[in-house]
Amino acid sequence: MHAYESPELSCVKPADPVLAGRIESCMKRTIPSAAAKAAETGRIDAFDLEHYHGERHIYWDSDTAKILEGMAYALTIKPDEKLAALFRSWTEKIVSCQCADGYLNSYFTAVCPQDRWKNLSTRHELYCAGHLMEAAVAGKDLPGGKAFLDAVCRYADLICAAFGREKGKRRGWPGHEEIELALVKLYRATGNRRYLDQAAYFIDDRGTEPNVLAAEEPPAGTVFSVQADKPVREMTEAYGHAVRAVYLYTGMADVARETDDGELLNVCEKLFDNIRSRKMYVTGGIGSSFQGERFTRDFDLSNGSLMYAESCAAMGLCQLASRLFNITGKYLYMDVLETALYNGVLSGISLAGDDFFYTNYLEVDDNLVCYNSGSPVRQKWFGCSCCPTSFCRFIPQMGRFVYSVGEDEISVNIPAANTAELRLKDRTVKLKIEGNYPYSGNVRIVVETAGAFTLRLRVPGWCRAWRLAVGNETFAEPVIKRNWHAGEVVAFDLDMPVDAVCCDPRVTGNSGRAALRRGPVVYALEEIDQSCPVRELVLCPDRPMSIVSAPGLPAGTPAIRGTALREIFPEKTLYTVTPPRYEETVFTAIPYALWQNRGKTNMCVWNRILRAAY
Amino acid sequence: MHAYESPELSCVKPADPVLAGRIESCMKRTIPSAAAKAAETGRIDAFDLEHYHGERHIYWDSDTAKILEGMAYALTIKPDEKLAALFRSWTEKIVSCQCADGYLNSYFTAVCPQDRWKNLSTRHELYCAGHLMEAAVAGKDLPGGKAFLDAVCRYADLICAAFGREKGKRRGWPGHEEIELALVKLYRATGNRRYLDQAAYFIDDRGTEPNVLAAEEPPAGTVFSVQADKPVREMTEAYGHAVRAVYLYTGMADVARETDDGELLNVCEKLFDNIRSRKMYVTGGIGSSFQGERFTRDFDLSNGSLMYAESCAAMGLCQLASRLFNITGKYLYMDVLETALYNGVLSGISLAGDDFFYTNYLEVDDNLVCYNSGSPVRQKWFGCSCCPTSFCRFIPQMGRFVYSVGEDEISVNIPAANTAELRLKDRTVKLKIEGNYPYSGNVRIVVETAGAFTLRLRVPGWCRAWRLAVGNETFAEPVIKRNWHAGEVVAFDLDMPVDAVCCDPRVTGNSGRAALRRGPVVYALEEIDQSCPVRELVLCPDRPMSIVSAPGLPAGTPAIRGTALREIFPEKTLYTVTPPRYEETVFTAIPYALWQNRGKTNMCVWNRILRAAY
Repeated sequence: MHAYESPELSCVKPADPVLAGRIESCMKRTIPSAAAKAAETGRIDAFDLEHYHGERHIYWDSDTAKILEGMAYALTIKPDEKLAALFRSWTEKIVSCQCADGYLNSYFTAVCPQDRWKNLSTRHELYCAGHLMEAAVAGKDLPGGKAFLDAVCRYADLICAAFGREKGKRRGWPGHEEIELALVKLYRATGNRRYLDQAAYFIDDRGTEPNVLAAEEPPAGTVFSVQADKPVREMTEAYGHAVRAVYLYTGMADVARETDDGELLNVCEKLFDNIRSRKMYVTGGIGSSFQGERFTRDFDLSNGSLMYAESCAAMGLCQLASRLFNITGKYLYMDVLETALYNGVLSGISLAGDDFFYTNYLEVDDNLVCYNSGSPVRQKWFGCSCCPTSFCRFIPQMGRFVYSVGEDEISVNIPAANTAELRLKDRTVKLKIEGNYPYSGNVRIVVETAGAFTLRLRVPGWCRAWRLAVGNETFAEPVIKRNWHAGEVVAFDLDMPVDAVCCDPRVTGNSGRAALRRGPVVYALEEIDQSCPVRELVLCPDRPMSIVSAPGLPAGTPAIRGTALREIFPEKTLYTVTPPRYEETVFTAIPYALWQNRGKTNMCVWNRILRAAY
Repeated sequence: MHAYESPELSCVKPADPVLAGRIESCMKRTIPSAAAKAAETGRIDAFDLEHYHGERHIYWDSDTAKILEGMAYALTIKPDEKLAALFRSWTEKIVSCQCADGYLNSYFTAVCPQDRWKNLSTRHELYCAGHLMEAAVAGKDLPGGKAFLDAVCRYADLICAAFGREKGKRRGWPGHEEIELALVKLYRATGNRRYLDQAAYFIDDRGTEPNVLAAEEPPAGTVFSVQADKPVREMTEAYGHAVRAVYLYTGMADVARETDDGELLNVCEKLFDNIRSRKMYVTGGIGSSFQGERFTRDFDLSNGSLMYAESCAAMGLCQLASRLFNITGKYLYMDVLETALYNGVLSGISLAGDDFFYTNYLEVDDNLVCYNSGSPVRQKWFGCSCCPTSFCRFIPQMGRFVYSVGEDEISVNIPAANTAELRLKDRTVKLKIEGNYPYSGNVRIVVETAGAFTLRLRVPGWCRAWRLAVGNETFAEPVIKRNWHAGEVVAFDLDMPVDAVCCDPRVTGNSGRAALRRGPVVYALEEIDQSCPVRELVLCPDRPMSIVSAPGLPAGTPAIRGTALREIFPEKTLYTVTPPRYEETVFTAIPYALWQNRGKTNMCVWNRILRAAY
């Protein structure tokens, strides 16, 4: 194992039409607005244990930690005195509420200290602890970061001393997984092997008999829904709460990597394959049911009303895919990551950066009731506001997905334009990628540092024809191992036609329909761009389609224009035997991730199509 | 008003391929098995107030009453000493638990007498009372029936004395409507005008301010969900719990009729029109959402997963439609009644008569999660077993829908074969209808009694061509007013081709799909009849279709056979850009109401179609 590492955040500066702008708006709007909301709602004052008398929630500390983690990344990307001061003051507040023994949770300490570790299955104590660890690792080099990390390590030590199979400890597992991957991060940041061992304990003890979560929480289904019904190594299918599932699998992948555990890695790969091949929307959204925010059965992927595809789950899938790619070097993981990133993740946040979907519907129509939210409109904040705070920490890191780095090899995973300084074993390589990826397949990679290393290029799963050249030299395999001259340019051209993606007929709602995709970007029809209701359109993907500029969206955003038939029923009755007539018209599709940035309107990803082959 | 009356139960004996057999199996299996279940579960012993110590439920008396009502009808159709003895013993048990003041409810008397009338919004007291009234009216002429009716009248008197706007009474309305229509029945059976006035009170006071149900039951939404948020005369759309809604509207129609209240009738007609034109499945199912068993917004009519279409609601719709037809003489009500009867009602019960759907899905596929029941398989009984007990009382009465009778006019509403003796103002007319309706449109009506009266024939909404003749005399209008000779035969021939019914595109899930219908019967594809999964079939309704004998179903049951394309994807991946190929094959569709009588299999009503017109 140990094939690749993702580069440090500071090493890659995106300059592309998607990631760069999103990172900018995250720093400008997402993080500040989440910080303001956290303060408004009492999440920060809650750390004043004696003086805060408002309502508290059991998972508030996780939101605060996730915003802090985002702040740390933002400060890494671009220094900002005010933000640095805020980071420092928040961490000081958190540290001030640490108990003498190291325990650190504002809710349990203030409200019910006697309930500490009493209910791990539903009360998010270890989940909050995990996010504190991630925040502390992210901010360890910032002013105030050291004290914060020290405090969090003391908390981690308390947890390590409390849970385990050894004498003097009790068995226990988090009801919401997260601490596993966080402990591995803490191990990597501190070198303290105890944290890795504790992560391995949480993973390997989970679901074994006697089942300590089942004993805690009587309601049937809970243990299944949190993936604690059986040992993780016996799992073959993804089930239960989707966010928890992918967090668990990420922790498993991390432990597998650090402990060279091929068996555990195999489990992760099998679980990932189940998601990818049977339980994932074409946008990379996962967890299709609004009931329990969960995976349901294979191919149960409805597009409206009851679907879920939580933003956090799509981000969690990217995190898992990135880990599995770095361990295995298999690009199919990057295919999924790229799909989720450009579609099901970014759909969850407005271009402005401070409006959020919890549920990422693939079809919205005035006549469909939305079971999750009532109204499919992005919101500024939620009662349970995990998604906005997840964006705070996810978006600044997006540039890290572009490359993976080995000892003497660089993998270009996603050829989005950027400038980078990548540290190989023996040298640092400066690279520049130019082009408009993902909106164009014509990529130029400028190698700015001379020296011997391998450049491995991912040919995306969606790509059916490509050309690779350095000067006049062409390559049949997408791997270039050579002694580079400074300034050499790699021309990597990926054909990027509009694809009409069909779906396995077992997803019954997608029968007779197709999703338009160009490169990794999935397109949707918004009603405001059409001459009639979206639901009346039958697209003709076998007729020529063209790329035009998307009206009202950022300059350079492509739209797909093509021919459609409008289905017109002469009678306006609910049921009729009079067949419709068809009128030729034009349709316009925009990138799905950008929908509902021009007001509220109906939208559909899986549109009806007319096949020339009928 | 007062256009028509439905004939008494004893006056019509069905001899057709659908109703007759269903009535027989109801008497043979449905009523006996429900009676056994009621006894097993404690519903009968519960009337032994002092000696029964098992669990009780607040609505149990309604189930017992509904089975009793069914028994009364069964005994009217065919004497049966054992059943008569059971009827008598149950009624005696019920009467024995009546309080001195007339109050009659086994739950409240045994468990919480102090809570009597305390919570009308959710505790079903007046609902149970209504079903006792209907049972008592149905059984009034049977042995033991008089004592039962007297007891129930004393209970009704107590209710009349308790609720009203007059001094000494309190205001109150049932959370589950039913007592309104029951009180009108009681009025008609006894001539006691007080009961009609009380029904009118419950209807007219409902939803007025101050809102007495809102004051009782704080949870938001409840008052809306039980149609008590505003005065009924201000209602223009059907909403809330579907069964309650159609029971309320039926009570409103009954009061409108008895009090010549044209305004109230208008409200009923408007509400019915909203259901018919925007909120009804092609099968006559209503209440499309499993959440709250309720109406949702117009055109929100999904076919799988989250749909509901409760059996009780379809029966309630028939009841309402029958009332509105009898008042107005408008056959559009009979169109809806006939649709619901032959499809969405009878789908709820197995041919054997003792397996029941609560939810009547229009699409079932292995890969779809069913949110209501988990498994879309008919059950013998339910925790809340309203549907089986509704069938007990609905099915024996189905023959009454065939005709409506005016002073000197007979309307043939549904020309199902039967023998009848119908009482007009001045004479009793014997009629016989022959034929295989609804499976054939060739109907013969033999007038067996000489005399002058009008025969009015409904030309069903689904029928586009018909011929009417008596001997050589043909009629251009479907009304024959003449002095009949005994033995004259009316030949009524309705063209009955296979129709591909299209749906308003606002029902987004039905786009590009059609439901096959022949006459009033909606057809479905069951997977066991096809050569491939139903979901892979694209029907070609513009190609010739033929009627064949349905395999494994009762002799004479037609199936539709036609051409389909099987859609075959070369790759077995979740998403692909490789288009499918199409192979010509044959499909077989059976009457929807008979699905899942040959084992568990996938099923679909709204199938994809290929239009010749593309």
